[in-house]
Amino acid sequence: MVKRYKKEDNISYALGATVAMELLNNRPECVRTVYISPKSDVDAVAKKARELGVNIVEGDKAFNILSPKENCFVIGEFDKFDTRLDEDKNHVVLVNPSNAGNLGTVIRAALAFDCGNIAVIRPAVDYFDPKTVRASMGAVFSVNVMMFDSFEDYEKSFPNRVIVPFMLSGEPFGKKSFSRDKRYSLVFGNEATGLPKEFEKYGAVRIEQSDKVDSLNLSVAASIAMYKLSVV
Amino acid sequence: MVKRYKKEDNISYALGATVAMELLNNRPECVRTVYISPKSDVDAVAKKARELGVNIVEGDKAFNILSPKENCFVIGEFDKFDTRLDEDKNHVVLVNPSNAGNLGTVIRAALAFDCGNIAVIRPAVDYFDPKTVRASMGAVFSVNVMMFDSFEDYEKSFPNRVIVPFMLSGEPFGKKSFSRDKRYSLVFGNEATGLPKEFEKYGAVRIEQSDKVDSLNLSVAASIAMYKLSVV
Repeated sequence: MVKRYKKEDNISYALGATVAMELLNNRPECVRTVYISPKSDVDAVAKKARELGVNIVEGDKAFNILSPKENCFVIGEFDKFDTRLDEDKNHVVLVNPSNAGNLGTVIRAALAFDCGNIAVIRPAVDYFDPKTVRASMGAVFSVNVMMFDSFEDYEKSFPNRVIVPFMLSGEPFGKKSFSRDKRYSLVFGNEATGLPKEFEKYGAVRIEQSDKVDSLNLSVAASIAMYKLSVV
Repeated sequence: MVKRYKKEDNISYALGATVAMELLNNRPECVRTVYISPKSDVDAVAKKARELGVNIVEGDKAFNILSPKENCFVIGEFDKFDTRLDEDKNHVVLVNPSNAGNLGTVIRAALAFDCGNIAVIRPAVDYFDPKTVRASMGAVFSVNVMMFDSFEDYEKSFPNRVIVPFMLSGEPFGKKSFSRDKRYSLVFGNEATGLPKEFEKYGAVRIEQSDKVDSLNLSVAASIAMYKLSVV
């Protein structure tokens, strides 16, 4: 039976037809059940689920438990999965992200800007939380996300990369040039606190902004960085 | 007495100490009351409110009504206000934005990237909704936001500008160059539907993205555009 999502569980949920469709298309082996509300007017998900031989449950029950307030009429229940980052690609490293919506939006932008390898340093919000999955619009099923206990652990696993920390104390980002021949790790800190001072040793950059705001939204900063890297 | 926010009301609320502080600093004439919870450990807001001679109410009642689930211990109640866009500045035009968080994030990025004049075309989410105000981190108190019933109304009020619609059918944005001598209106459509086809006549641009995602998040797209315009 469906129950409220908990971080410790081995399963999570893709809420909404668009997100569930991304699940079915990109991680079919992880799908457990597709729940379809009588209010759903989207046939594509049920069709795809039948093609894949996935268990379909019709009714309202799952929706009352998982999505009582939202306009969500399709839910995909899935087994959490592990991915490994691609060494030969650029990475985004999020140090202690705390907001599920931000993390999901970064994951979606990462897929859009061909930067689909994301390291997340603990403590951090859970990237399988249904809120993150939904904010990613299902991009979490196409992007590689990997958790690390510390930045040092990440560096040990993926050495010899160009580390680019984003910090208010850094050099103007507009002047930064990227090369196609190098592999970059764009590093962003926590929403409230940013990156610790020790990251300055790598040579930090700063997205030029007015001093009328304390800082940029995390997903805005990461997206501007990934976009620039993608059009090199 | 405090009551749940409704769009028709003439008052709204700044939830949280940071947001309330922006209200007090930038729209002191609009503040009605500052509510402070016994759990608050921030003195700066009460100090500023006292300096301004603003009514302060201590207690938990307002928080139970306005912010039952959040970690919010300070609330600023304010009269809604009107602003007019600055003709001599670049504008962002949001056609039918539907998500309060997106609108707030765009307003915050607009302040960060010196593009603090935002036209919103109805139907649209309410920019005084406490959720928008909070997502803007209080930038709504420094930025000019103006509502219009149609894009035609906006154009009549602000003629002779360079209109730049962002559409999937447009030319690559990376090749677009901006001039400091012109006044631009960057135009973005609704989160789900984008801009109607008739906007193509202005010469649309497209932020380069992989076809693995349908579209970019609205606040991500607008932020990339405003950033580029800000570093011209």
